Amino acid sequence: MTEYHPVTADVISDLAALLGGRNVSCDPDKLLSYSRDEVQGPFWQDGCLAEVVVFPEGTDHVAALARYANEKKIPLTARGAGTGLSGGAVPACRGIVVSFEKMNRIVELDRENLTITVEPGVITADINRAAAEAGLLYAGDPCSGDASYIGGNVAENAGGNKVVKYGPTGSHVLALEAVLADGSVTWFGGKRRKDVTGYDFVHLLVGSEGTLALITRIVLKLLPLPAEIVDLLVPFPDVATAVAFVPRIVTEGKVLPASVEFMDRRSINLTERFLNTRLPYSDAGAHLIIQLEGNDTESLADEYERIGDLCLAHGALEVFVADNRNSRDRLWKARKSITESVWAFHPGKNVNEDVVVPTAAVPELMRRLDEVASRLETSYVAFGHIGDGNMHVTVTPDRDLPERESLLHLVQDELYGIVKSLGGTLTGEHGVGLKRRDSIGLFLDGAQIDLIRRVKLAFDPNNILNPGKIVPWE
Amino acid sequence: MTEYHPVTADVISDLAALLGGRNVSCDPDKLLSYSRDEVQGPFWQDGCLAEVVVFPEGTDHVAALARYANEKKIPLTARGAGTGLSGGAVPACRGIVVSFEKMNRIVELDRENLTITVEPGVITADINRAAAEAGLLYAGDPCSGDASYIGGNVAENAGGNKVVKYGPTGSHVLALEAVLADGSVTWFGGKRRKDVTGYDFVHLLVGSEGTLALITRIVLKLLPLPAEIVDLLVPFPDVATAVAFVPRIVTEGKVLPASVEFMDRRSINLTERFLNTRLPYSDAGAHLIIQLEGNDTESLADEYERIGDLCLAHGALEVFVADNRNSRDRLWKARKSITESVWAFHPGKNVNEDVVVPTAAVPELMRRLDEVASRLETSYVAFGHIGDGNMHVTVTPDRDLPERESLLHLVQDELYGIVKSLGGTLTGEHGVGLKRRDSIGLFLDGAQIDLIRRVKLAFDPNNILNPGKIVPWE
Repeated sequence: MTEYHPVTADVISDLAALLGGRNVSCDPDKLLSYSRDEVQGPFWQDGCLAEVVVFPEGTDHVAALARYANEKKIPLTARGAGTGLSGGAVPACRGIVVSFEKMNRIVELDRENLTITVEPGVITADINRAAAEAGLLYAGDPCSGDASYIGGNVAENAGGNKVVKYGPTGSHVLALEAVLADGSVTWFGGKRRKDVTGYDFVHLLVGSEGTLALITRIVLKLLPLPAEIVDLLVPFPDVATAVAFVPRIVTEGKVLPASVEFMDRRSINLTERFLNTRLPYSDAGAHLIIQLEGNDTESLADEYERIGDLCLAHGALEVFVADNRNSRDRLWKARKSITESVWAFHPGKNVNEDVVVPTAAVPELMRRLDEVASRLETSYVAFGHIGDGNMHVTVTPDRDLPERESLLHLVQDELYGIVKSLGGTLTGEHGVGLKRRDSIGLFLDGAQIDLIRRVKLAFDPNNILNPGKIVPWE
Repeated sequence: MTEYHPVTADVISDLAALLGGRNVSCDPDKLLSYSRDEVQGPFWQDGCLAEVVVFPEGTDHVAALARYANEKKIPLTARGAGTGLSGGAVPACRGIVVSFEKMNRIVELDRENLTITVEPGVITADINRAAAEAGLLYAGDPCSGDASYIGGNVAENAGGNKVVKYGPTGSHVLALEAVLADGSVTWFGGKRRKDVTGYDFVHLLVGSEGTLALITRIVLKLLPLPAEIVDLLVPFPDVATAVAFVPRIVTEGKVLPASVEFMDRRSINLTERFLNTRLPYSDAGAHLIIQLEGNDTESLADEYERIGDLCLAHGALEVFVADNRNSRDRLWKARKSITESVWAFHPGKNVNEDVVVPTAAVPELMRRLDEVASRLETSYVAFGHIGDGNMHVTVTPDRDLPERESLLHLVQDELYGIVKSLGGTLTGEHGVGLKRRDSIGLFLDGAQIDLIRRVKLAFDPNNILNPGKIVPWE
């Protein structure tokens, strides 16, 4: 295990000299709040506490910081808005937490090249808005988009609601300005739609959770903004009928929708309670949201009628069409609030997973999950990006059960076993981080884990960048 | 520089024992032909000659081969169909050339998960065909697709004619079975639409030119097959008017076409001569091909009329609509034959480049290229994937010029200088390989080149996998 230099009073004053006193904080409340993300419950020891939090104002600050930390051997853990769900930004080896909140400028929107260049601290929804104002689409759309920073989206390769059609965050990243572990500043990629000049380090950095470099600027691809959007809210009598229908949208409907989301009855009921609202047919076993886009009102109407008829022919109870801003916003507010609703009514530690399986295996995943839950006498909430085979499952055993802790482990082990047997994997969009680090060996073999370590150290020989993450490091 | 073990008679007999005598060849003609690709002219010394060519029949053969070569320290250079344009499959350090021609099975087409699993020796067009027969689209479409192998497409991250809408080969790759340098066999990725379990090694391997691992199986993503396709062939009076029009297709036409291809007058004339055919308006300064797709005949017709009108409003001489199989095939045959036509009429060594710039910089690239060519009294052919900013430029000085060789260097240096100053790069889809290895330092800084070397050695500590490529290794 790497030996790190502690953050002494000398280090603090060096940091203040490098970044300015206003950009360095040792306030105990801040240290605590900047050492956590949205993972609920004590998944790791309280030992994961920042010794200092810094707020660089630009690339030169970040470069000076890396040069200094690399020389001294002090951990640097990059942090976005703290909306992560895997402990990716939690300082596992203490040291310096680097908050990018002051690097929050939209640097340029280039209409001719269809790109937007941003600093890592820009809120994702602000990018969506800036693009839309220019008549363009930024297709990244994580559920946390109103709060999350784009830097965190890139670091975790955030998914969200439009992956079916547009791919995850990485699909939109053309270039990254990065500060390497030794403080050198370099640009990977450029405003180029293709590039095979050397290895694809742009997309290696995407999803690497701040373990390979510190990202200081991001060039994102923009697309034409679809003129028309329609959401279908489709209740089904039960989960099995809903999930079995999903592949038909593409195979029989011949359409690649922008979104296909799934919510089981418990998700719907929790979000209704949380938002104090009602959704139609909320006693149905499950709902799908199917989003379709187009430029032509009539042909989009033909398309959604065709898909709607297909739903009804395969067991849907009804098809609600949300074709105006108001009805669409209401629907998506419900969908995007599920995670928060679950936390509100089931606080503390739960099994809160982000598994992904081949899309055709979702029905079997749900069947077996149901079997496990009923055998272990516990309940769960399931929702997620079913069009990608990515299901968010929260298992919520009775809080007062004495065997709660061991039950959680048992359910998680069984869930992972099922996912693996179906050709699935540990995490689709939340990341490994600290939370899933010790489970990665169930899904990746020794050779791959070893490659992760070796590539990490090829980028970061002193192991200062977000150390202790993704794979076990003992 | 790494010291390698020579391929002695003992090695040959060991290889025959591992793979079977029929899968090992030292025939001098074969050694020669399996040591070259489609790069024209003696770009490197004749020293780059295979000592033996092997033809593994399956993953177990490849694993045994790697284990053996790694232990002995003998170079292993993977080879597809030999249609490469960068010397990527040329054995720079001699040793063993590994031809994947016997690993040519389509293993599975999974209609439910929308994937196709193939061995690396499958011809790209066979994948397009197999998908289309199942009513699905494999969107990879390199111009060499009738001959190239999918393994080569993955190794070079081949682009082609549909990158504007669907991205390069890597965008379609979900998973790779790979043999690592030490002979261990592992699967990166899976039949999963998203996956953040560890670093994205799938897309690091894509485009790595066989320097990191030997790819033995590929899982590709399939999409719904568009019901209708229309190609517009649009002649413009001159290059400047044609290239300036391109961004308007997206920004004003609000459409993301499947292809936007460019051919200058010389390209058209060469391909006409080569195919002994005539294209309409072949005396125009330049042509665009714009491909549009849709599911609805009427709305597609509306769309191509709108785009056609936009062309005419911005200087197009005419808009020809190719909406049946016959006319479309004829058009694309002309487009796809340009490279061969150039070679046929300008054989031997030329400057044959694959530069890419931000799309909005294409007009400036063409203006400055013209200036260089006229100043140096030489001529060129330009065509390519203009929708991606990726231009194929072949400079063809008079073959009898005594200063031909130095002129070629001069033009190439000037071209690279222009491309760099416009924010472009060395290669968009052909790869660095051996041909561009010594130019990479013009486009990547020292830190990045160093990272390429370190990551390469993290995967391949004995430096046996296609050594001597991508970056200088002295």
